[in-house]
Amino acid sequence: MSQTTNQSWGGRFSEPTDAFVARFTASVDFDQRMARHDIQGSIAHATMLARVGVLSEDERDAIVAGLKEILQEIEAGTFEWSVALEDVHMNIEARLTQKIGITGKKLHTGRSRNDQVATDIRLYMRDEIDAVAAELARLRAGLIELADREADTIMPGFTHLQTAQPVTFGHHLLAWQEMLARDHERLLDCRKRVNVMPLGAAALAGTTYPIDRHLTAELLGFERPAENSLDAVSDRDFGIEFAAFASLLLMHLSRMSEELVLWTSAQFDFINLPDRFCTGSSIMPQKKNPDVPELVRGKTGRVYGHLIGLLTLMKSQPLAYNKDNQEDKEPLFDTLDTVLGCLRAFADMIPAIESKKDSMREAARRGFSTATDLADYLVRKGVAFRDAHEIVGLSVAYGIQNHKDLSEMSLDELRQFSDVIEADVFEVLTLEGSVAARNHIGGTAPDQVRAAAQRARDALAQYVTTQQATTEEHDQ
Amino acid sequence: MSQTTNQSWGGRFSEPTDAFVARFTASVDFDQRMARHDIQGSIAHATMLARVGVLSEDERDAIVAGLKEILQEIEAGTFEWSVALEDVHMNIEARLTQKIGITGKKLHTGRSRNDQVATDIRLYMRDEIDAVAAELARLRAGLIELADREADTIMPGFTHLQTAQPVTFGHHLLAWQEMLARDHERLLDCRKRVNVMPLGAAALAGTTYPIDRHLTAELLGFERPAENSLDAVSDRDFGIEFAAFASLLLMHLSRMSEELVLWTSAQFDFINLPDRFCTGSSIMPQKKNPDVPELVRGKTGRVYGHLIGLLTLMKSQPLAYNKDNQEDKEPLFDTLDTVLGCLRAFADMIPAIESKKDSMREAARRGFSTATDLADYLVRKGVAFRDAHEIVGLSVAYGIQNHKDLSEMSLDELRQFSDVIEADVFEVLTLEGSVAARNHIGGTAPDQVRAAAQRARDALAQYVTTQQATTEEHDQ
Amino acid sequence: MSQTTNQSWGGRFSEPTDAFVARFTASVDFDQRMARHDIQGSIAHATMLARVGVLSEDERDAIVAGLKEILQEIEAGTFEWSVALEDVHMNIEARLTQKIGITGKKLHTGRSRNDQVATDIRLYMRDEIDAVAAELARLRAGLIELADREADTIMPGFTHLQTAQPVTFGHHLLAWQEMLARDHERLLDCRKRVNVMPLGAAALAGTTYPIDRHLTAELLGFERPAENSLDAVSDRDFGIEFAAFASLLLMHLSRMSEELVLWTSAQFDFINLPDRFCTGSSIMPQKKNPDVPELVRGKTGRVYGHLIGLLTLMKSQPLAYNKDNQEDKEPLFDTLDTVLGCLRAFADMIPAIESKKDSMREAARRGFSTATDLADYLVRKGVAFRDAHEIVGLSVAYGIQNHKDLSEMSLDELRQFSDVIEADVFEVLTLEGSVAARNHIGGTAPDQVRAAAQRARDALAQYVTTQQATTEEHDQ
Amino acid sequence: MSQTTNQSWGGRFSEPTDAFVARFTASVDFDQRMARHDIQGSIAHATMLARVGVLSEDERDAIVAGLKEILQEIEAGTFEWSVALEDVHMNIEARLTQKIGITGKKLHTGRSRNDQVATDIRLYMRDEIDAVAAELARLRAGLIELADREADTIMPGFTHLQTAQPVTFGHHLLAWQEMLARDHERLLDCRKRVNVMPLGAAALAGTTYPIDRHLTAELLGFERPAENSLDAVSDRDFGIEFAAFASLLLMHLSRMSEELVLWTSAQFDFINLPDRFCTGSSIMPQKKNPDVPELVRGKTGRVYGHLIGLLTLMKSQPLAYNKDNQEDKEPLFDTLDTVLGCLRAFADMIPAIESKKDSMREAARRGFSTATDLADYLVRKGVAFRDAHEIVGLSVAYGIQNHKDLSEMSLDELRQFSDVIEADVFEVLTLEGSVAARNHIGGTAPDQVRAAAQRARDALAQYVTTQQATTEEHDQ
Repeated sequence: MSQTTNQSWGGRFSEPTDAFVARFTASVDFDQRMARHDIQGSIAHATMLARVGVLSEDERDAIVAGLKEILQEIEAGTFEWSVALEDVHMNIEARLTQKIGITGKKLHTGRSRNDQVATDIRLYMRDEIDAVAAELARLRAGLIELADREADTIMPGFTHLQTAQPVTFGHHLLAWQEMLARDHERLLDCRKRVNVMPLGAAALAGTTYPIDRHLTAELLGFERPAENSLDAVSDRDFGIEFAAFASLLLMHLSRMSEELVLWTSAQFDFINLPDRFCTGSSIMPQKKNPDVPELVRGKTGRVYGHLIGLLTLMKSQPLAYNKDNQEDKEPLFDTLDTVLGCLRAFADMIPAIESKKDSMREAARRGFSTATDLADYLVRKGVAFRDAHEIVGLSVAYGIQNHKDLSEMSLDELRQFSDVIEADVFEVLTLEGSVAARNHIGGTAPDQVRAAAQRARDALAQYVTTQQATTEEHDQ
Repeated sequence: MSQTTNQSWGGRFSEPTDAFVARFTASVDFDQRMARHDIQGSIAHATMLARVGVLSEDERDAIVAGLKEILQEIEAGTFEWSVALEDVHMNIEARLTQKIGITGKKLHTGRSRNDQVATDIRLYMRDEIDAVAAELARLRAGLIELADREADTIMPGFTHLQTAQPVTFGHHLLAWQEMLARDHERLLDCRKRVNVMPLGAAALAGTTYPIDRHLTAELLGFERPAENSLDAVSDRDFGIEFAAFASLLLMHLSRMSEELVLWTSAQFDFINLPDRFCTGSSIMPQKKNPDVPELVRGKTGRVYGHLIGLLTLMKSQPLAYNKDNQEDKEPLFDTLDTVLGCLRAFADMIPAIESKKDSMREAARRGFSTATDLADYLVRKGVAFRDAHEIVGLSVAYGIQNHKDLSEMSLDELRQFSDVIEADVFEVLTLEGSVAARNHIGGTAPDQVRAAAQRARDALAQYVTTQQATTEEHDQ
Repeated sequence: MSQTTNQSWGGRFSEPTDAFVARFTASVDFDQRMARHDIQGSIAHATMLARVGVLSEDERDAIVAGLKEILQEIEAGTFEWSVALEDVHMNIEARLTQKIGITGKKLHTGRSRNDQVATDIRLYMRDEIDAVAAELARLRAGLIELADREADTIMPGFTHLQTAQPVTFGHHLLAWQEMLARDHERLLDCRKRVNVMPLGAAALAGTTYPIDRHLTAELLGFERPAENSLDAVSDRDFGIEFAAFASLLLMHLSRMSEELVLWTSAQFDFINLPDRFCTGSSIMPQKKNPDVPELVRGKTGRVYGHLIGLLTLMKSQPLAYNKDNQEDKEPLFDTLDTVLGCLRAFADMIPAIESKKDSMREAARRGFSTATDLADYLVRKGVAFRDAHEIVGLSVAYGIQNHKDLSEMSLDELRQFSDVIEADVFEVLTLEGSVAARNHIGGTAPDQVRAAAQRARDALAQYVTTQQATTEEHDQ
Repeated sequence: MSQTTNQSWGGRFSEPTDAFVARFTASVDFDQRMARHDIQGSIAHATMLARVGVLSEDERDAIVAGLKEILQEIEAGTFEWSVALEDVHMNIEARLTQKIGITGKKLHTGRSRNDQVATDIRLYMRDEIDAVAAELARLRAGLIELADREADTIMPGFTHLQTAQPVTFGHHLLAWQEMLARDHERLLDCRKRVNVMPLGAAALAGTTYPIDRHLTAELLGFERPAENSLDAVSDRDFGIEFAAFASLLLMHLSRMSEELVLWTSAQFDFINLPDRFCTGSSIMPQKKNPDVPELVRGKTGRVYGHLIGLLTLMKSQPLAYNKDNQEDKEPLFDTLDTVLGCLRAFADMIPAIESKKDSMREAARRGFSTATDLADYLVRKGVAFRDAHEIVGLSVAYGIQNHKDLSEMSLDELRQFSDVIEADVFEVLTLEGSVAARNHIGGTAPDQVRAAAQRARDALAQYVTTQQATTEEHDQ
């Protein structure tokens, strides 16, 4: 037999597969990373087949023992993968038959590669999602603690990258945390839809064997069997939904990265990233580059690309399984790797951020960041907001010309613009006064930041607990 | 004053906005569609301001009455929108002040356009999501009833668009229904995250006024106020998540469309679409084109595009609000319109599909669709599956050469390939036998299809009930 | 007749189009913007038909006169568009028949809407491309002149947003110009492929009338007729290629925008944008926001989205025309509008940029930007580069600790790190010395910048001349 | 020294790079595939440095000899790649220094990794583009010859996947060829912009060494040195433009694939794909699946994804080089591999397509494909086209009811609808008459198809000649 002919479907074929076509269409190079889950699924399938009488107990035992040996071979790196055997499934089945003889072939009773691969990838993704959730929780926890420590640190808040109003650094960090909390929620929503079992759909229509899909689902920790066999073998929604989650997450990380890059620039100089998260230049000896946030920002493109790739893949596909779907794995695996790598890098780096409090404060002091406070002050003195805005606008114009911030002007200078201004104005023009005054849920007042950190801590703890329960359940 | 100078921020500015820039940066042409929700938000804000003592009751009453009049003007089409006033918010505020004088200006106390626009778009989307959910439920219901009626209709099931095994048309329709059920779930998950209130975040840091955000949230039917002001004004996740939902939905509709187009072709000829859903040709008098599914398939691109547009928009944006974000509305509005239009067209069309049962059956009869059943039969007679596969492969090769399907061969012809074949083979080679034998949850057996239709009906009813409760709650 | 029944294909149909379907599938709301080009194409078609004897000269004259009247009606805004007539073509044909009777119907001889719409959109795009090219040339010219004026202005050059080496502002501006020069080239490459004529392909296979496609192509200024009728009615490459051009262009504008936003921040403070290109805040009286670059940066998403939308649209479409293709117009029109608006805004704004030379210079002076020059100096004194790099690294570490730039250290301080350093070191540590020393093609030396500006000016002049020749040719 | 500390920028750093960060930011795993081009660039650089006197001739000879040895090691697979050395450049430089001592370090004089990597990737892409162009030419040639052979084969032409008019199979194949001809043009336009040399830009601003960039460009076969150093190190347009080319190409291949999949279905049955390009099923013994076109169609998503990934990567990046850009390589390499694989598979497969002429002809005969010819016949007999359309519409309605195509009706039956119909009508109702009558450039008449094939053959020959000249030039 030619090395590239696939015996498993030879009867109807009059010539072997073209050698290039065999390589071009094989998937074993990338799908072998699901080997552990393929074996996990096969063990459950064999167990079920024995329970319903399709396999004898001896057959089941031989299969399970053989599969466990194969798993050891794979984990030890001694398993020989063959492109001629196309994919992970055929490689393992061939090895099993080699080991235990014809009984190995019986494992494939009542299933097909269509439902098998769909099951493998869901098992694989479920484990990876749990790993992602753990890193996400670690990053969130790091942010919350840093925010709590920096609840009083004043920095300029920006809109349009122009100084807007003073905020606290802790408040800013909790804004990041909120983004990630939504990602966490979306991830768990996605997990629900991943955790549904295609096995039993067989090629597309179900099988004539008396299978018990509820049993297999239970053995594998799936919430339920998929409702429809045609849908079960052709559905790749879970992958797209995960890629959409990942795109939102990377978008958030790109925003944090953008700010980290800005803040470590000589112009902003708000924070220091420890040397171990940076690299230098082979040419310019003074350089210390924020490589980690830059690279993570760059990886956003990769994940967006995978999302659109998967959506394109599924567009207009008629039911049920088409070969196109083999293209789902590489983008999904790369998305998982990317998400895990970025989260790990951030979870390590974030707690190590050193704020440069003086520099932040000085930046907040400049740029007329308390102009809104002055306007609010005037309103409280009975000036209409519209007029107050105009008065402050003119004060700012004066300040720009004379290189003075509002808090640096004398009372006389301020009174040029409105005679309702009195000595108490300087209280509202201080940075501390400004932030403390925004004292409501969601506001930047240090007390609010500390309270928000506590709520975030509690919410995270609850998530993590719930998830651990879910995860443990199916590990039993 | 120049028509294009914006009085609301004039004090600091020494020249009017360039006329082209004013037009280029204005949003009123597209954001006026949120007018009703802008007014809804303003009424709640005014009510809250009065409750906490920032407005008097008279001021509140004047504002509320003025806003209601403006809403009537807008709905009557008599409201004059001005590009010089930039956006929907300034247009309405200007008109309010025209009507009730300086009190109109007080409405803006304790908020900014940054939190106002974020609130408007969430209120708007919440209503649209409810409309989308209703159409989605209508389409699902139509599919379920059609599937139930067609639970016994036999058609060929395809993989790789090659005849694979016989399935029932009802089973195929329920595969579509499963896709939409996941979309429905995702939509409601998304709605949770839309229904959070940014109002009170003000420009970016909160406000110095003693606002009560829980009260405003309650008045507007929001589940809770957003936790962090910086995040609240810069978060556009809800729009992206909706676009991701919409992309998956349109992907599903594109798959259904592809099949509808195939099935109405002369080559497949499986169904008839009533003339009212088709169009003809000005040149070719015989043409009847399945325009609706083709157009829906085409609209998939538009929605994928909006998703990637929104993701690109947010990539690398530093906090908090940037002008870039104005670009969120047009893609979101167009996504909502597209989703609603496509769902409406499908919900109208699907129940009107007429199956051509004879043609479907004839197609299933050809193409060796029961080859797997023959293999399973041989296995039950003690042949190893691998050998059975080979035997059937050779029978098929014989059939292709002699233009005979398996069920058309004589017993002698069949026995050329294996002498375990006996007269009872013809039972398993019938289409009815084949489908009936796939009799487990998710299988294509007519009984399973009817049971699945009933479960789907129940699940849908429960969704709709839950959602009505949610919707009514905030309408009170 | 029902308002929504289309008489032009009624014979085979037994019921009128569903009212919602008629609206859902109509295109006249957006395709009417091609009316002028539809008429242009029809006049050429009628002229050709008369030349080959299919129309009489009188018929041709009546048709041409009628079409010209209709064009006047459209331009005067008195033309009544009807959704019941589906699209721009049927609206104009119906009006023509109303005006000149049955002869109006003869215009459609030997063509179909499939080749007609493909012709219209190419004519439309060709004109728009010429308008885009003109704005692009204006922006490039503005950049070149500004770069020439700023050839001596020193600013810090960044890599990783960390100060790297001093460059001149003119050099930086010419980097932008180079990006746009490539876009300009790509646009003209795209124009070649737009300027090919589908007319004569008819519905899909050509026509039985004795048409002369070379004549029509000549009349319409097309370079040649399309080679294959099936391809001609289904090809939308030109639109995708334009969207790819536009995506690269907007990507470049987003990079410029990012830098403009950074440079106008209080932290960078490198430039001033005149007030007329900025907007303020209704809340924060001190704000002056760089709205134009922010909005342009935001519009990048829109254009990327349209590119992916169009690619998705065409994926997997079988030949020849499918209704899906109606979805090509809106993204293409919006891309054209966006590109024109962004280019216009930039072409107006760029020449008005005011550089803050002192602030730029001060930033370049800080940040150890001449560290590479010191290393190069050491190499010239015989130190191996590797050692030189180390020596400078230690000097920088010392400078950070003591808040001194390299040029601010005394000779003694510098000699701590290497005794080959002598008094002449201060020449290489000056900013002027540093930039002047990079004196080769592509380098940042002021002389090189001025020479590069002159080359760019010449290249642009040549482009513009070539293009004017091309454009005038087909306008005759 | 820690394995993960990079000595080349250590002086300023107080702690080694974090081990995970070192792995996370290293690129050597994927950029080593540019090793040959890195060495090619380094040899040219060393040659230039010697010519301008920066290196001695001995130093140059040592470097060149060392690099050639390293290339041999790499090609022999004996080179040891180290992640600790980050990337391909540092790995090769370190090995060179190991081999030839301190002189190895001098190679890096007057360049930086920023311009080096940009040069490597352009050299690499130029070679790959030439390989892509060769496969594209091979595929086009195969299509042209097949089209010529099938110039008389009649099949139904479709619009909306409904039978429209008869066309020839050769005509259809030439429509595919036209798509690829445009791709070929775009590829060569892209190659022009790839073939520009960044080397000499150094880190970002040029270098203080007296380099001769024209010489290096000539040595490497580049058309010219890049005009601006900042642009040269940050420009990734060439990669995006290639990805846009690839997206259009894959879109075209997806359309061909869609049709190949349709045509091999039991329903269409228009062609046969030889067994060597197909695969079977492990479950369904009758299956022969068109895996190659399916997989190619699926790969469309991957390439679209890379395009959007690269566009996202570059969005909003400030000048000059940022670490983000490291993310350009993997998508680009995968795009190149995908394009080459798909083209190779198609170029092998297309000439092996076997048309099923009887089946195609039968399909064309059904479906009223000559209805337009009947309408044109009536017009020639003096009936207004509008009335002719109506008459044919009614004939078709009659034919549907009575299961007769137009050509199967008797003269009496036809005359029910119009008494101008006479016996000569049957000539226009034949398939041969219909296709032969579309006899103008671009039309489906067999003579036109043969003429078009000849023009395509000539055009392709000219392309290939031109390109060979270009390629050979730089290989000398």
